[in-house]
Amino acid sequence: MALDSPDTSIALLGFGTVGSAVARRLAAGALPGLRLTHVLDRRADEKRHAIPGPFWTSCFDEVLASDADIVVEAIGGLEPAADWIRAALAAGKSVVTANKQVIAHHGVALLAFAARQGRQLRFEAAVGGAMPIVRAVGEGLAGDRLTRLVGVLNGTSNAVLSRVETTGCAIADAVRFAQARGWAEADPSADLDGVDARAKLAILCALAFGLHVAPSRIETRSIARIGAAQFHEARRRGATVRQVAWAEFDRARAALTAWVAPALVPRESIFARLTGPANAAIVSGLDGGDTGIFGTGAGGAATAVAVISDLIAVARDRAAIVPPPALSAPTAVRGLDRCGDLVDFIDLLRVDQAARETLAEAV
Amino acid sequence: MALDSPDTSIALLGFGTVGSAVARRLAAGALPGLRLTHVLDRRADEKRHAIPGPFWTSCFDEVLASDADIVVEAIGGLEPAADWIRAALAAGKSVVTANKQVIAHHGVALLAFAARQGRQLRFEAAVGGAMPIVRAVGEGLAGDRLTRLVGVLNGTSNAVLSRVETTGCAIADAVRFAQARGWAEADPSADLDGVDARAKLAILCALAFGLHVAPSRIETRSIARIGAAQFHEARRRGATVRQVAWAEFDRARAALTAWVAPALVPRESIFARLTGPANAAIVSGLDGGDTGIFGTGAGGAATAVAVISDLIAVARDRAAIVPPPALSAPTAVRGLDRCGDLVDFIDLLRVDQAARETLAEAV
Repeated sequence: MALDSPDTSIALLGFGTVGSAVARRLAAGALPGLRLTHVLDRRADEKRHAIPGPFWTSCFDEVLASDADIVVEAIGGLEPAADWIRAALAAGKSVVTANKQVIAHHGVALLAFAARQGRQLRFEAAVGGAMPIVRAVGEGLAGDRLTRLVGVLNGTSNAVLSRVETTGCAIADAVRFAQARGWAEADPSADLDGVDARAKLAILCALAFGLHVAPSRIETRSIARIGAAQFHEARRRGATVRQVAWAEFDRARAALTAWVAPALVPRESIFARLTGPANAAIVSGLDGGDTGIFGTGAGGAATAVAVISDLIAVARDRAAIVPPPALSAPTAVRGLDRCGDLVDFIDLLRVDQAARETLAEAV
Repeated sequence: MALDSPDTSIALLGFGTVGSAVARRLAAGALPGLRLTHVLDRRADEKRHAIPGPFWTSCFDEVLASDADIVVEAIGGLEPAADWIRAALAAGKSVVTANKQVIAHHGVALLAFAARQGRQLRFEAAVGGAMPIVRAVGEGLAGDRLTRLVGVLNGTSNAVLSRVETTGCAIADAVRFAQARGWAEADPSADLDGVDARAKLAILCALAFGLHVAPSRIETRSIARIGAAQFHEARRRGATVRQVAWAEFDRARAALTAWVAPALVPRESIFARLTGPANAAIVSGLDGGDTGIFGTGAGGAATAVAVISDLIAVARDRAAIVPPPALSAPTAVRGLDRCGDLVDFIDLLRVDQAARETLAEAV
């Protein structure tokens, strides 16, 4: 965008944790070229005092009819978010979303529609908070032949498990602690049960392996029953417990193994070292070996970083084409091949071991 | 790019470690839409048997006159690389380069020229090998207000230092070991003395802080005199030695502190755990906290991942605009404020401590 271009005007849907953080950054005026013009919230009347500049509304049609260039969707959940994203694209607006469920379930169709419309749909904030894993996997490692992705993708679960680890409290107490800090919702079940992480894993399987996988096909096991006993056992074995999301792609057979479950991870692992609402992932490829990324995975300010990065990208080149990924279906989707509360850390050690062996050849 | 678009044709300059790895990936035909049509090398006559498909030449004018859409520059060094990149852009070609010196010294002018030409200049491979730090910092974290970047950015030095660490050998022996594996050039002084890492740090200062810093303004201290004695001292203090690149931006004063030097890093740090030709960086921002990235930082196959990722990006949207960054000069550039062979790890501990404290609030 040339320096004399007019501002890019932005309409925000949802003034919750993420939306309000985005709005505050935009309203502070330190992002030249980006201007917040509309805010939609169900409780617009109560909240409008928070950011007095933009036009506040509870009516989506007013946003649709506005001259906003970009719509930021931060309401969460499948509907009406997916409908509103579609309608915004149909109205000629680009869309930036933080919504993992919409992208996991409807991302390909929405991206194809955006490309047909000559508009952009960006979703860095849907996975990993401030950690730019969508760009890292979808663009930065696009030149590799990726085979495995292991991550801690749910900041809430990580905050809960690391709280149990350090204090020995019950999961329920750790959940209340996380709720008090804004890292867990009133109903944390989507986080604890792995429904949030498997949506993110489905998105990453599309970006990393070119696979279309419905989130419901990814086996999940809850962390809700993990307690002091499991942490005690983990400690005895030089490990700790984390909610791990695992995807391994057998390229020759086009078969996918994918699951989200509580797992024993060795204490020296990058995953064990994550405390609070942090995320991390190790992505392995035939050419580049192991690439890791870690960062703040939850919270308004961190997720706003990803949203604003996407806003800057759209504003930089409003005519850019973000092509929909050409996805194929895996021949098979396998889950965990064993029972039990915890995935044994032997599995996880393999990750670090592979990394160490790759590097050990070097030394 | 639509599926029925013609292939994007690629001319490769330089059939060395990186260039030959790129050529082999392209010639294997597993990258649909990308076709290697020309290879330029000083010794084209000797090397042409390696990849028989494309047209081989030693004459740059033949590449310039060709119908190649993208020129991959993998010859390294400032000249003639910078001239050739400029000429390729002038001839209407997009350019993908792995050349940190050209980007550090002439990046802004070349990016501005590319934008005027309606062509792209991409350089993910210039920093970090397969580790996609250029996209992570320049795009993924563009929405943060970044204040610090600490990294191990030179794979050769890391391979040498980790070899000394594990075997107790002399630096000269470790250099020969690295040379035998293709991680160090015949003359490794640019790597050991920090000239390579400071060019990468200058690039990252532009992407992270919007600062134009000539590489020569970044203080460097060589690792060439590090030996068993320093590692012994490091071990005694729970640390090891790495070549660290450090940049800290005081946003209020627009002042930069930047240096590359051998440093004591705590054993539990991400930097201490890097062995072989690995790279890592921790990028800190006011909004997103600490984001880390690590991966294979050197070698043909790993660097080819970054080059091919850029080729895919250009081919996806040949009309994309990559705007030149709007850079300003720092009011001051400071280096190290102390003498000695090694930067004391107390400085480095602060990095990890800050990360831990951020996360500790979570727990």
